[in-house]
Amino acid sequence: MNVEIVTTGTELLLGEIVDTNAATIARRLREIGVNLYYKTTVGDNRARLAEVLRLGLQRSDAIIVTGGLGPTVDDITREAVADATGRPLELRTDLVERLQALFAGWGRPLTPNNLRQAYLPAGAIVMPNPIGTAVGFIVEHDVGGRTCAILCMPGVPREMERMLADHVLPYLRQRQGESGIIVTRTLHVAGVGESLIDDRIAPFMTGSNPTVGLAAHLGRVDVRIAARAPTPEAAAALIAPVEAAIRERLGRWIYGADDETLAGVVAGLLRRRRATIALLETNTAGHIATMLRETAADLVVMALAGSDPAGLLGLETPLAAEEADACRAAHLLRERGNADYALVLLATQGPNQGFWAADRGHTWLALATPDGVRSERFGVGGSDEFSSRWLAVYGLNYLRLQLL
Amino acid sequence: MNVEIVTTGTELLLGEIVDTNAATIARRLREIGVNLYYKTTVGDNRARLAEVLRLGLQRSDAIIVTGGLGPTVDDITREAVADATGRPLELRTDLVERLQALFAGWGRPLTPNNLRQAYLPAGAIVMPNPIGTAVGFIVEHDVGGRTCAILCMPGVPREMERMLADHVLPYLRQRQGESGIIVTRTLHVAGVGESLIDDRIAPFMTGSNPTVGLAAHLGRVDVRIAARAPTPEAAAALIAPVEAAIRERLGRWIYGADDETLAGVVAGLLRRRRATIALLETNTAGHIATMLRETAADLVVMALAGSDPAGLLGLETPLAAEEADACRAAHLLRERGNADYALVLLATQGPNQGFWAADRGHTWLALATPDGVRSERFGVGGSDEFSSRWLAVYGLNYLRLQLL
Repeated sequence: MNVEIVTTGTELLLGEIVDTNAATIARRLREIGVNLYYKTTVGDNRARLAEVLRLGLQRSDAIIVTGGLGPTVDDITREAVADATGRPLELRTDLVERLQALFAGWGRPLTPNNLRQAYLPAGAIVMPNPIGTAVGFIVEHDVGGRTCAILCMPGVPREMERMLADHVLPYLRQRQGESGIIVTRTLHVAGVGESLIDDRIAPFMTGSNPTVGLAAHLGRVDVRIAARAPTPEAAAALIAPVEAAIRERLGRWIYGADDETLAGVVAGLLRRRRATIALLETNTAGHIATMLRETAADLVVMALAGSDPAGLLGLETPLAAEEADACRAAHLLRERGNADYALVLLATQGPNQGFWAADRGHTWLALATPDGVRSERFGVGGSDEFSSRWLAVYGLNYLRLQLL
Repeated sequence: MNVEIVTTGTELLLGEIVDTNAATIARRLREIGVNLYYKTTVGDNRARLAEVLRLGLQRSDAIIVTGGLGPTVDDITREAVADATGRPLELRTDLVERLQALFAGWGRPLTPNNLRQAYLPAGAIVMPNPIGTAVGFIVEHDVGGRTCAILCMPGVPREMERMLADHVLPYLRQRQGESGIIVTRTLHVAGVGESLIDDRIAPFMTGSNPTVGLAAHLGRVDVRIAARAPTPEAAAALIAPVEAAIRERLGRWIYGADDETLAGVVAGLLRRRRATIALLETNTAGHIATMLRETAADLVVMALAGSDPAGLLGLETPLAAEEADACRAAHLLRERGNADYALVLLATQGPNQGFWAADRGHTWLALATPDGVRSERFGVGGSDEFSSRWLAVYGLNYLRLQLL
């Protein structure tokens, strides 16, 4: 079943409020396994909303609309649905009585405008709203022998969320005939670019069930495998062979899946060896220590961060971003912290350096282990906010690869 | 000039990330005074994106697209723009050289996929990206003698924001010929419902310049007057008579404008009288005190909150949600706090009470002043989260009206 979302409201359109309703609905739709292909936002304009609904009637099996159900002349969803489906608006006596009872209870006058909320397109099915004045409604409309349902909910998030759970999702589930759910498996990759990953797994990205997609984050790429099936078990069976093939191609680049974090994985590797770590970071604002401490504070026995590494280690001669100095610092740090491992990042700190600068500088990573010191050069230095976070992920991933 | 926004990305569509780009772009567009009529989100699907672009070419003068400019097969914006405008994709040697230099600087391999980022639809104007691999581009397309521009930016917010400021907004401003800006004036109303306000000012809501719109918030309704004009002064001149007419019809219901808050206005009224206040709230979780303290902590000399008002005042006999008890409590509180004013909210606390319950309960408000005690009954009690916040606004507004 193909569904689209239409959110209405000039405030939403103009960016005065961020549209959280659309994201909420999308997440819930995914759980019941319907296809979501479009989200559209229009202002409080009857003609433009009707036009968007007419388009939706042609291309979708259900249109979920939020907003525009209030009592003012700004609230045009009832009228626009009537226009798009060629139905008259009808005054519903059950809704008039409901409003009269509500306003009597509050001791407030019922104005003529409030009665706008008692009009619905002919044949509409009411969706009750126990926590607001605006009821929702469903119009099932015939489009050349096919039925498209327009489901209208209030725009107030708490009212929308309740109506979505109590009425919209059960309706869609029934229409869909319990035809399936979507299960997602996400593999996390660090240390390589999106394009290189794409290059390796492109053959899997053209399938339709499961689908495979990539999403780049800071220093991390997610590979998302999504399968649609009648049961969770059947979906897992569809995912398994694709995941195995992708793991074969990406190997150790994959550091975890789903809720696993890079810091959590590294902490697990350290814990398995009953090992502690000391850290010295010159250009990552101490991010590596912060990330590790969030998941395993006890394993980080010493964490130094600052632009003067020699000073941090109490040395009299300065340390440069060179291999020998990085290795010496790692060796010293391991002794000083009485740690099993010591990771050092020494970066060039010039004014014009960083990820996207013309002069990018560089960073030397050195890891002191019980078996000696290893090192690696990375072609970015500096310490602007973006490179520092990227380098922290890179450094943490370097640690992971060395611990494997 | 009519503009629409198209954001792409399956993660956006599925609600895994909330679309902040669209809101950012909308706010900036408003500052330069273009009309924004539609925002659409589509997944990483070439055919559906091309379809949305074709629709936009027909109805808009410019389409702003974000996302889909990365190096992977998922990134289909370049192809979709080419499809929608009937232009071939061309390999740009300037972009190839740029990518080669970037990757050489990082010491990372340039894969064939990276070269996808060097293809653009024929005739595209490049928008440079100094902080990311994906450049943006503009395609100016003729649609029956009219030009519609498609402006494509990366989906990474920091890259998008910079390109928007440096290239997209200047381009649109020039196309628009500096034809105007939009100035907004927002009047805040408390204590009455949206529909009653609408009833009074509906005649002003049909104009096109300025436009007048309503937006309901918790216990507050905003009346937004927006004018388009060549200069801020000209816009202000359009707004002034409409604002005056609305103020005449809504009178004291309007508590402030633009950045003014209800608590700030009440604090100002107290300060003008060099007066202090004491508060006792049984069903608002102390919200009134919290709101007042945020703006004028020194004026709140005593703040009591809890479900046992007699206990809070050290009385031996309980206080009920009745007029006499509320007045007595206000009188006592004013003495106890040595304050100029004392506001008391005594509410029924039954299990099934609150704004939307079948049994709504009630709240007695009493205000002790230097000239005696005044009181008012409000037809909602209870203390669920929604009613408590609503009642706090109602109570604060009652205080404002009494101080006027």
